[in-house]
Amino acid sequence: MAKTNPGRFFEDYALGQVIDHAVPRTVGAGERALYHALYPARHALYSSDEFARASGLPQSPLDDLAAFHVVFGKTVPDVSLNAVANLGYAEGRWLKPVYAGDTLRSSSEVIGLKQNSNGKTGVVYVRTRGMNQRDEVVMEYVRWVMVRKRDVDAPAPETVVPELSKVIDPADLVIPEGLDFSGYDFTQAGEAHRWGDYEIGETIDHVDGVTLEEAEHMMATRLWQNTAKVHFDATFRPDGQRLIYGGHIISLARALSFNGLANAQMIVGLNGGAHANPAFSGLTVKAWSEVLDKAETSAPGVGAIRLRLVATKGGEPFALKGEDGKYQPDVLLDLDYWALMPM
Amino acid sequence: MAKTNPGRFFEDYALGQVIDHAVPRTVGAGERALYHALYPARHALYSSDEFARASGLPQSPLDDLAAFHVVFGKTVPDVSLNAVANLGYAEGRWLKPVYAGDTLRSSSEVIGLKQNSNGKTGVVYVRTRGMNQRDEVVMEYVRWVMVRKRDVDAPAPETVVPELSKVIDPADLVIPEGLDFSGYDFTQAGEAHRWGDYEIGETIDHVDGVTLEEAEHMMATRLWQNTAKVHFDATFRPDGQRLIYGGHIISLARALSFNGLANAQMIVGLNGGAHANPAFSGLTVKAWSEVLDKAETSAPGVGAIRLRLVATKGGEPFALKGEDGKYQPDVLLDLDYWALMPM
Amino acid sequence: MAKTNPGRFFEDYALGQVIDHAVPRTVGAGERALYHALYPARHALYSSDEFARASGLPQSPLDDLAAFHVVFGKTVPDVSLNAVANLGYAEGRWLKPVYAGDTLRSSSEVIGLKQNSNGKTGVVYVRTRGMNQRDEVVMEYVRWVMVRKRDVDAPAPETVVPELSKVIDPADLVIPEGLDFSGYDFTQAGEAHRWGDYEIGETIDHVDGVTLEEAEHMMATRLWQNTAKVHFDATFRPDGQRLIYGGHIISLARALSFNGLANAQMIVGLNGGAHANPAFSGLTVKAWSEVLDKAETSAPGVGAIRLRLVATKGGEPFALKGEDGKYQPDVLLDLDYWALMPM
Repeated sequence: MAKTNPGRFFEDYALGQVIDHAVPRTVGAGERALYHALYPARHALYSSDEFARASGLPQSPLDDLAAFHVVFGKTVPDVSLNAVANLGYAEGRWLKPVYAGDTLRSSSEVIGLKQNSNGKTGVVYVRTRGMNQRDEVVMEYVRWVMVRKRDVDAPAPETVVPELSKVIDPADLVIPEGLDFSGYDFTQAGEAHRWGDYEIGETIDHVDGVTLEEAEHMMATRLWQNTAKVHFDATFRPDGQRLIYGGHIISLARALSFNGLANAQMIVGLNGGAHANPAFSGLTVKAWSEVLDKAETSAPGVGAIRLRLVATKGGEPFALKGEDGKYQPDVLLDLDYWALMPM
Repeated sequence: MAKTNPGRFFEDYALGQVIDHAVPRTVGAGERALYHALYPARHALYSSDEFARASGLPQSPLDDLAAFHVVFGKTVPDVSLNAVANLGYAEGRWLKPVYAGDTLRSSSEVIGLKQNSNGKTGVVYVRTRGMNQRDEVVMEYVRWVMVRKRDVDAPAPETVVPELSKVIDPADLVIPEGLDFSGYDFTQAGEAHRWGDYEIGETIDHVDGVTLEEAEHMMATRLWQNTAKVHFDATFRPDGQRLIYGGHIISLARALSFNGLANAQMIVGLNGGAHANPAFSGLTVKAWSEVLDKAETSAPGVGAIRLRLVATKGGEPFALKGEDGKYQPDVLLDLDYWALMPM
Repeated sequence: MAKTNPGRFFEDYALGQVIDHAVPRTVGAGERALYHALYPARHALYSSDEFARASGLPQSPLDDLAAFHVVFGKTVPDVSLNAVANLGYAEGRWLKPVYAGDTLRSSSEVIGLKQNSNGKTGVVYVRTRGMNQRDEVVMEYVRWVMVRKRDVDAPAPETVVPELSKVIDPADLVIPEGLDFSGYDFTQAGEAHRWGDYEIGETIDHVDGVTLEEAEHMMATRLWQNTAKVHFDATFRPDGQRLIYGGHIISLARALSFNGLANAQMIVGLNGGAHANPAFSGLTVKAWSEVLDKAETSAPGVGAIRLRLVATKGGEPFALKGEDGKYQPDVLLDLDYWALMPM
């Protein structure tokens, strides 16, 4: 038993600690095809090398969320194996596109710690960075999780809660080098709506639905080398259900949002996100979006749009929280992100 | 709601209209591997680069039906989102092999329109072409679908029903440049039967069966970026079943036909096809073939064979239609195609 | 019916007979990604091209067991289509890593025959070799299966039972050219335990579990072009269950063994193996290992470790056989292999 990884407990984290996560991964044509088999992903920049080249990139990058999942997956054995809950995300930025042949690894720094008043758990804040084989940071994000203590009598660390931006300032978004939407082909991209056609406050029902399957969410989650038992082992939870990796719902909702947001091509910022309710096989997921903000960028023809993306179990669109401020029971995901669009 | 694609209705089509379909797609090693994971595909030309080179091609092409699915998938949002039924195929030809790295897009021309006497629906005939990044047409086919009218009071268009060949003249089949079966390795291909060993009228029971799974047909259909709700959303049909994309059955039956037709390597013509009955998860699909015709070609060692490929729910082989001329309830697919074989 | 493959029966084998199996296969980025989607595979050498290069290899090879499955899959139509039971493996050695772009084929020599006393079946021993496109043998193994006779009155062949090593002498293991673990990065590999940290007799419970899915085992088995009906056709067995390919359990157990054996990077020898009980969808597979032996090698920083890998239906770890010498009902697999580890 001593040789297996029991995961870290709350008292195993220290402020400023840097954890280099294991198992670097080379991504390529296989990951790309699987992403398109597992999600109804259709954004043209990630589907066509030709479209990507016409947009100033050398080829089609790996889907932004696939890059996120690879980076995130590596953190699971070190950060969330004993997590009780995944509490939030902030300050997520995509800094470099990931291309076929790139090898990703990730590293997390503990930036906050707060023991809970019950003395049994605590909240750990980490800033995770994903690097490629040239040591370039391809993305970074902050995540906080509630983790069990191994020993309830272990002393509480000094409470440090990091100050995190509620929203990434659009000036801090990183536009991939060379990106140029001035010759954007709206017909090939699938919709005519440009940045100027979206209004702040506008909501979009993405209409389509996908019913969740065990084999699909497990294949996706494995592909990112996420090892959390609860996703794979039907004997782990008393109810015999396999909890679906929250990132599976993020990717599914993002792919569904193509219908109405086909031109929100690249995700460049993750302002925040909540997995409002657990997801299980058999549910049918639908999605809606709300335009939260818009900003110009310095890149030719490229605008930024801030979107709320909500995944539901198929309930009424546009219902997010009840009068008590709690998420509606039908809501699975509430994500706040910045994307790049042709102007 | 205004920003999502409601699909075209019958009155949205006009004779001669050309629709450029969205979302070009670069295919490669990932699509190839997934095709072989989702179907029991074993034809050597598509499995081995070495076998393909020995046959005069630069490398193993993407399976012909995978190329068809990619081209077809793009047409769905424009042609069949509001389709009541997929009525038929004709004049399908594969014109250029598709290789890893190729980017496919497709375009359809409306070549026929006929409002039904009930005034609620009409039949739309389109000729679809798939092009690669060099603007070469890689395949083309005619398909006709029954589509709902948005407004039953919209005026009926002039009825134009195109004249379509029942069978492609073998002289019009396009043999890939360089194809040469004169040094064909029957041992590596898996069977000894050559073109001369098949007789017109001969029938072959392909023996093997595959039980359909939700995760498999959904992954396949998504990979081709086919967005029809009915394949993915269990809440869409009143019976809670996900209708399986007809192309999934085509690929499955073709792969099963390896056992008895291992040397019917390349599909070059699609004379016609009918999805005789709907397919759902849980059914076990079997297949049988009938040799309909044979023809010589100008390529060294290459003969053409015209085959009927029938997929069933596991019923008795060789039973196709009842005395009333209707398909037997066990029949899922009746496909008529031309393939190339070593002589 | 005459054109389909009925498989070989016991009387169709002759001592010394060499069978060249059909359908060569080119493997690549797609097979690699699918392997990591279908199994929780995390060994760093197979996940990262950079890690592989730091270990002296030109790039990350295809997982050793994936290479085994490809070679094995080709033998099924010739060796085990009419098999009653897969009885054992011996003298398996991996001789050359398989890289993206390699094309594999396989060939088997009949090295033993023994008719059973009931006169209805017999045991066939074959030595199978997998070759790449340069005719280099990439792996070889002996396997014996019980096969039905077509005609119970066919005369029995002379009984020849080959003498097979119970264990491969570590001096006969082939270390890939250039392999060098002297600069091994234990942090990136995921665990700190080196060759010297494992003791003969030590047992390791790999803790994690994976629940089996029909779509997953079928996709894996198809990817290796294994055509045995029993894995795919739910109508084949009277109980309506699809028997899971034994190799699926091997790969799953090996991947689970990462947790405790992350540094047992390369499999180079297969001493023996038994599929103790059949596996079906819905079961949750767990795994444990026992260190059976250790040996030094001539490669820098590389040690060999002999491991027993046991897959169970989730029963108690470390229980293998009952007092009657029979496998416990919970045991699915008992595999004996040599792996290479950093010293």
